[in-house]
Amino acid sequence: MQRRGVAVLGSTGSVGTTALRVLARHRDRFDVNALTAFSNSTLLAQQVDQFRPKFAELAANGGRECLVQAATREDVDIVLNAVVGSAGLDATLAALEAGKRVALANKETLVMAGHLVRQAIERGGGEIVPVDSEHSAILQCMAGRKRADVRRVVLTASGGPFRDWPREKADRATAAEALKHPTWQMGKKITVDSATLVNKALEVIEAHFLFELEFDQIHVVVHPQSVVHSFVEFVDGSVLAQVGAPSMEIPVLYALTHPKRVCDDALAPFDPVAHSPLTFEPVKHDNFPALALGVDAGRAGGAAPAVFNAANEQAVAVFLQGKMVFGEIAPAIGAALDHLRGAAGDTREQLLSADSAARAFVKEQFGC
Amino acid sequence: MQRRGVAVLGSTGSVGTTALRVLARHRDRFDVNALTAFSNSTLLAQQVDQFRPKFAELAANGGRECLVQAATREDVDIVLNAVVGSAGLDATLAALEAGKRVALANKETLVMAGHLVRQAIERGGGEIVPVDSEHSAILQCMAGRKRADVRRVVLTASGGPFRDWPREKADRATAAEALKHPTWQMGKKITVDSATLVNKALEVIEAHFLFELEFDQIHVVVHPQSVVHSFVEFVDGSVLAQVGAPSMEIPVLYALTHPKRVCDDALAPFDPVAHSPLTFEPVKHDNFPALALGVDAGRAGGAAPAVFNAANEQAVAVFLQGKMVFGEIAPAIGAALDHLRGAAGDTREQLLSADSAARAFVKEQFGC
Repeated sequence: MQRRGVAVLGSTGSVGTTALRVLARHRDRFDVNALTAFSNSTLLAQQVDQFRPKFAELAANGGRECLVQAATREDVDIVLNAVVGSAGLDATLAALEAGKRVALANKETLVMAGHLVRQAIERGGGEIVPVDSEHSAILQCMAGRKRADVRRVVLTASGGPFRDWPREKADRATAAEALKHPTWQMGKKITVDSATLVNKALEVIEAHFLFELEFDQIHVVVHPQSVVHSFVEFVDGSVLAQVGAPSMEIPVLYALTHPKRVCDDALAPFDPVAHSPLTFEPVKHDNFPALALGVDAGRAGGAAPAVFNAANEQAVAVFLQGKMVFGEIAPAIGAALDHLRGAAGDTREQLLSADSAARAFVKEQFGC
Repeated sequence: MQRRGVAVLGSTGSVGTTALRVLARHRDRFDVNALTAFSNSTLLAQQVDQFRPKFAELAANGGRECLVQAATREDVDIVLNAVVGSAGLDATLAALEAGKRVALANKETLVMAGHLVRQAIERGGGEIVPVDSEHSAILQCMAGRKRADVRRVVLTASGGPFRDWPREKADRATAAEALKHPTWQMGKKITVDSATLVNKALEVIEAHFLFELEFDQIHVVVHPQSVVHSFVEFVDGSVLAQVGAPSMEIPVLYALTHPKRVCDDALAPFDPVAHSPLTFEPVKHDNFPALALGVDAGRAGGAAPAVFNAANEQAVAVFLQGKMVFGEIAPAIGAALDHLRGAAGDTREQLLSADSAARAFVKEQFGC
């Protein structure tokens, strides 16, 4: 395997730091040539000391342009996009247009602008390899198989901290309660998204674009242990799954090396006994209405996924500020989707406009 | 996919009838051109009526030669060998020498004569595709990957009906008790082998030969639900598994079509919720000493695996006759291994001689 240059966008976040931990073990294969972070200058400085990248910038200083700069550098082959939210869109599009591999943890860009991403791939010859554990699982199960051999996929969802709560109690839950994720250590925004199952809706839409699956082919099951990362069912009825302790290190490494694998002994061998029992439950759609809202937005297409995503980002921000309870998030998203039904979403500008309108609508509703 | 001619050896047994059920659904792809059974003339006649093969024979009448005849016919591309025990050896070797695909349910032949099987493949250009659910799982997880990417495999074992029994009670168990397998409906011999974990020892040795794995790379975990059919761990720490309701239909079909898949809607889609919870336990080696005996025989090589297999076949026959209790099976095998330690196993004749000597030894010990 030849040496590859890597840019890590969002290097001080949860996925970014995991990625650098993995990259530190594989300096024989990868050069970290660019780092960007939002505002954590202390940690970024430490990372610069460790990896000596040729480019490092804080987006809070350099603006979003620095993401595009990092993503399109000539000495960068792989862009690990771990930016949170729609802020990651332009860098993904630019990297794909420039023919790079995008190791995508920033699922929001694919959700809000899946068809633009596809066009960028066609124009520039880049490729997307998912970093999300669920999509990495699907990719690993499908790798080397024909797309036509896949009948359907089943995404697993941890169910979040309110999986077992009565609806009335969960509806009144606060940010502090939502941030206690049972299995994954992640950033705040995605942790809230796991609690609402918005994250799973985003993943369904992401799977639709990544693997060219119809929405009817994408199922969701609650799996509280987060050990089975997803299932792929083939046309002959056989099912493969990718499994393992909840750690982003494996999907990050695989996104860098796909379709190859490289030796990495850092993680303990998988011990099924240590993870027993594995349980699976149906989704309680009454308690977690945001999942169906998001999947419906995905089916509707146009600007609807972007509206769903932006309304959620804004609602989560309001929720994290303590100005909204848990049970208000999904209705806020639903109201934004109703309000902006039929909005055009063909171009980047239309999508960003729908994104802004959705945010403004949610802010207005909650008087922020 | 071009039409392929199939011979089913052991067509009236558990795997044989499953195979014909699958083949009946895929008559557009496969012609059943040869059938052999041991002695069930009534069922064989029905099968002949249904499939109109050009060759059909009872081994009890035609002798073992009829297996070789069926396996080497010019109109046969795939030999599904579902014969029980070492009686299947010659047909496997002959089919491989003749360049056929052998869909192998008869694991005993690979266990007793793995290196002869390898030589036959090299000479004749045939190939073995496993029908055992565990090995099919491993093959499906490995398909399209490099062998060097595999770090280890974990075979799952149901644990059999005595998994939870105190050792003293299991040791006194009878054939009727051993035949109550918790998850798989199978023939008597393999059901007893599942209870002793001899079956898992045979599968470890089979995996060693099929996938060129060292014995240290092959692990066993007890999984009472038999839903995860095995795990493959890759060098980067990622783990794939093949899962599904316990049914031989999927591995049989896959053995016919590998590396392709064909559409088959006969089985219900996999529902993780219906199979929840999935549990995993360590093997209780004190209660089931035959597993380690078999793996040690595999490591020892030479005639030891053949002795292990033959002693077990004879001990199971004695056990099924009610002349031995469950706890005597493993010691009988162990005594035969001790008695025949160092026996030569380079040639077919030496292996058949060791096989006979092991059977005679067990018979003598139990005065049959």
